[in-house]
Amino acid sequence: MNCEIIAVGTELLLGDIVNTNAQYLSQRLSSLGIDVYHQTVVGDNLERLVEAIKIASSRADIIITTGGLGPTDDDITKLGIAKALGIELSLDEHSLRRIKEWFLKYGRSMPAINERQAFIPAGSRAIDNDNGTAPGILGVYDNKIYISLPGPPKEMKPMFEDKIVPFLKQKSKHVIKSHTLKVVGIGESAIQEKLGEIMKNQTNPTIALYAKEGEVHIRITAKDENISEADDKINEIENKISDILGMDIYGYDEDTLEFVVNKLLQEKRMTVAFAESCTGGMLSSRFTDVPNASISYLNGVVCYSNEAKVNVLGVNRDTIEKYGAVSMETAEEMAYGIKKISNTDIGISITGIAGPSGGNESKPVGLCYIGIAFGDQVKVYSFVFNGNRSKIRWFATTKALDLLRRTILDIN
Amino acid sequence: MNCEIIAVGTELLLGDIVNTNAQYLSQRLSSLGIDVYHQTVVGDNLERLVEAIKIASSRADIIITTGGLGPTDDDITKLGIAKALGIELSLDEHSLRRIKEWFLKYGRSMPAINERQAFIPAGSRAIDNDNGTAPGILGVYDNKIYISLPGPPKEMKPMFEDKIVPFLKQKSKHVIKSHTLKVVGIGESAIQEKLGEIMKNQTNPTIALYAKEGEVHIRITAKDENISEADDKINEIENKISDILGMDIYGYDEDTLEFVVNKLLQEKRMTVAFAESCTGGMLSSRFTDVPNASISYLNGVVCYSNEAKVNVLGVNRDTIEKYGAVSMETAEEMAYGIKKISNTDIGISITGIAGPSGGNESKPVGLCYIGIAFGDQVKVYSFVFNGNRSKIRWFATTKALDLLRRTILDIN
Repeated sequence: MNCEIIAVGTELLLGDIVNTNAQYLSQRLSSLGIDVYHQTVVGDNLERLVEAIKIASSRADIIITTGGLGPTDDDITKLGIAKALGIELSLDEHSLRRIKEWFLKYGRSMPAINERQAFIPAGSRAIDNDNGTAPGILGVYDNKIYISLPGPPKEMKPMFEDKIVPFLKQKSKHVIKSHTLKVVGIGESAIQEKLGEIMKNQTNPTIALYAKEGEVHIRITAKDENISEADDKINEIENKISDILGMDIYGYDEDTLEFVVNKLLQEKRMTVAFAESCTGGMLSSRFTDVPNASISYLNGVVCYSNEAKVNVLGVNRDTIEKYGAVSMETAEEMAYGIKKISNTDIGISITGIAGPSGGNESKPVGLCYIGIAFGDQVKVYSFVFNGNRSKIRWFATTKALDLLRRTILDIN
Repeated sequence: MNCEIIAVGTELLLGDIVNTNAQYLSQRLSSLGIDVYHQTVVGDNLERLVEAIKIASSRADIIITTGGLGPTDDDITKLGIAKALGIELSLDEHSLRRIKEWFLKYGRSMPAINERQAFIPAGSRAIDNDNGTAPGILGVYDNKIYISLPGPPKEMKPMFEDKIVPFLKQKSKHVIKSHTLKVVGIGESAIQEKLGEIMKNQTNPTIALYAKEGEVHIRITAKDENISEADDKINEIENKISDILGMDIYGYDEDTLEFVVNKLLQEKRMTVAFAESCTGGMLSSRFTDVPNASISYLNGVVCYSNEAKVNVLGVNRDTIEKYGAVSMETAEEMAYGIKKISNTDIGISITGIAGPSGGNESKPVGLCYIGIAFGDQVKVYSFVFNGNRSKIRWFATTKALDLLRRTILDIN
């Protein structure tokens, strides 16, 4: 079975956005054993969309579109499919009800224009959108499968995973199973060197490294006729990799570093509080993006000003004057202070220079101190992160989460 | 003149990499007045590539390929073009010499396999690659322009800019100019309804709406023979839209809401501090992602626990017990408290239920109270945001930034 992905949107043809949806779907379809032979992008132009759908119908078994399901005039995907297949659009009452409810939840009544989103090609079925108003579509015509997904990735991905993947799995003949090991604290080249022998000539399962911001994902993919043999193949390779990378592997598959650290703290019944300067609340924000973070997260302070460091955290004014706000000493007192005022098991501090200005020769942009207070001890680590302001802040918070993770593992 | 971009590479169809080349070229071509009507991706498969080139030749004036110019068996782009056009490949002596020199520069002799890179479709000319071994190709057949660029962006971009842009500029008759108005606090459908009359039948400039998380971008694009006439056309439409949307327009082009609010505060020499509960530091993090945020941002508290609300912010314990941590009353005292302890002009508070659990009938998931303390006043606004935990947090912080923006504008 092969698939063509058609992204609909003039903003793609203008280069305003990059087609990450095609990448996401290609990766996922490949892992389901479905070949993608073409990705196509067309604009919000009915004639060209109809033509693209006809071409795709002539060469693919599955046609997946993304985008163009909105309520406005330039949202033409459903009309394009209907025209290409020579069918009509018809009102889906269930979807109309859902869209109305969506607006009611906001305390608003549905604008008339949104009714259009409830029309779908006759004979297809609407796919509920749990993250927006536009329903997706799934239809089978002439033995070809037509799937339409919304454009925004936050709507497209959950709809694909929850509603489309189960359907496609039934259609595919062999099992492709993937398992991802998530690694932090070591770079892609270093991993490649360490795993060189294992990766060499490795074909089934395959091993692929993906460098992400501040971490690396190792994806092991096995293809087999049944799931248990695929699992065996994956386990064998996973054990070898685990022996080499050990604690650098922080989690698996859907795990995020934030989630793993939250879970560890909850398991150990420990609490934590954060005092942030240059990261400006990003560490707290990332940590609390995990549901139930409140079980272990009690308090956070973003002490951008020296006054806040002194008044809220109790950092010694002399320390800041003598060593500077970005210093080992200030980081130490911040970590101690946040732990004390929050009455938690662990206190974490970050102080640094996120840039673009504010650096000098002895304290360059990217310099960050991370302090960890636990029991009677405060340990301070120093780093120089590379990149722009956003990247430096991201790397610093990733490092803080990883140090917190390793601290909890070390303690217990 | 219109163009089709064909990216060649199985790694794109597997989702291993994202097609950033297509985005880059689309953006550049658009600014040169050349319309891109299709982006296509095919794998390293000769038959499908030939077919794709034939289809592109039937609908575009310019066909630009990226990738597939390497020395190995699966680099088939030039062969694909030759086959699609029914011509032969012929050796380009100049390119062969350059490739040999390239290897010599690194103290190596050219592997035999690289000779293939010097073969180009008969009748086209080789484009020197200053950053790699693979020459590009430029050919005109049947009044259609065929351009082949290498896949690696570090080779593709300089070749396109230095060697192809000057050629295309001679061919293009128009300038295209775009201008984006950024809107917050009003949804896409509502904007469409308000701008209905202006948007209807509007062709030059065009007006397009793009829904982003929590905001909407209105892109006005004019096509003209010279830049000043394009500017005039854009200004005329922009004035009409501004009259209708007024304060809902927060900025233009590269502006972000965070940046605009920072700038406003700095202009008015005002300071702010944030007290966050359910958003867990995201508001502080977003605000301080802007360089020099420290000029107006003094302090932030993430008071997840009730203890922190009471001890750090001075919220009355009775208020929390009587009305709950998520209440108008608590939001009011939080905003007042953070302003007082930080000694700032404005204090902002957010308390709400980000979910997925913790909601009930009277206080559903998504309910957020945002408090703004200024002077002797505290105003509290209530909202119910829709979506998962991350979305609710994002919407709440966007709303807080927008309320802060409107408060500053109202004051002055």
